[in-house]
Amino acid sequence: MSGIFITLEGGDGAGKTTQAELLASWLGERGLEVVQTREPGGTMLGASLRELLLHGEHVDDRAEALLYAADRAQHVSKVVRPALERGAAVVQDRYIDSSLAYQGAGRPLDLTEVRRISEWATGGLWPHLTVLLDVTPELAQKRREATGERADRLESEAAEFHRAVREGFLRLAEADPDRFLVLDASLPRDELHAAIIGQVAPLLAS
Amino acid sequence: MSGIFITLEGGDGAGKTTQAELLASWLGERGLEVVQTREPGGTMLGASLRELLLHGEHVDDRAEALLYAADRAQHVSKVVRPALERGAAVVQDRYIDSSLAYQGAGRPLDLTEVRRISEWATGGLWPHLTVLLDVTPELAQKRREATGERADRLESEAAEFHRAVREGFLRLAEADPDRFLVLDASLPRDELHAAIIGQVAPLLAS
Repeated sequence: MSGIFITLEGGDGAGKTTQAELLASWLGERGLEVVQTREPGGTMLGASLRELLLHGEHVDDRAEALLYAADRAQHVSKVVRPALERGAAVVQDRYIDSSLAYQGAGRPLDLTEVRRISEWATGGLWPHLTVLLDVTPELAQKRREATGERADRLESEAAEFHRAVREGFLRLAEADPDRFLVLDASLPRDELHAAIIGQVAPLLAS
Repeated sequence: MSGIFITLEGGDGAGKTTQAELLASWLGERGLEVVQTREPGGTMLGASLRELLLHGEHVDDRAEALLYAADRAQHVSKVVRPALERGAAVVQDRYIDSSLAYQGAGRPLDLTEVRRISEWATGGLWPHLTVLLDVTPELAQKRREATGERADRLESEAAEFHRAVREGFLRLAEADPDRFLVLDASLPRDELHAAIIGQVAPLLAS
């Protein structure tokens, strides 16, 4: 596969969407085909699953992990792999690391099994670069309140859960420093953007 | 767990629903609480997933296997386990064996991995008895045509697929003769019912 695959990770309110848009524009200006996408919900099936996951009845922990994996299998098969095979740049909001941080670290599930299921779902497709926008639970909450949006099910989980997820992300980054770029999400957006393209530019050259 | 867990398996048109109803009535007459249920679709979440699986956009093979597993995790956690813990008899239309026969045998997926995912989804819960109503593809088609119902996506798959699924079921039964009761689905319904209660009665006694 000749394209490049970049994912953005971090808690809600980390600024992933803003940075994904800035990065996608920057890549587009360099003449690349850019596919900006997200999980869950990057396909028609995924949009239905996203709705079920975020606003439906209470979902058992294992069922939840399997639904995210199903969304991921569909998305990789229908969107991500075809784009990479065409040589496109895929800029994606959340991927396997989100499952590992949310389901593996935040809930009482075996991390090894959650990872194994996601790897099976994707045929072992990992990103070239993962940008972790590290956000403190306090900053995330302040940003969410500022938007005035109603919190969805995941967002209204306890502060303890958000802390465990953040620690989960940081542990993942620590274990795989070649793939991860960890940035402090409280920095100004242009500074974050500059740091991201500083890592992406060498990927384009190689 | 003090209840008993009985599943019915076989291709569409095998007569599973009729036999499930007869068995549920028979168990009820013996004073047991009976929970008659099915997969996919035995919970609110499952009903939405069933709709997506049978009538939605084309679903990638792995995504499909993961959706069935998610439905199963939710169903076991919310319906089957609580019923068995109350001492009820659970009579269920389709379970893990359907995933193994349909996804494992009928599609190009690794059977070991499909089984592993279902075992994780259910916490390793297997039925006390599985009744396989073995139906030839020809009989199944004749019965479907007789109902005049529009074929759903799975039902309109090629005859070759139905043959592979049937062989998958028979192989599963052969590998686990203590759990399986294999019956010729072309027999009269009362004869099938008698054969089924012949196996269930000793389970109740024990």
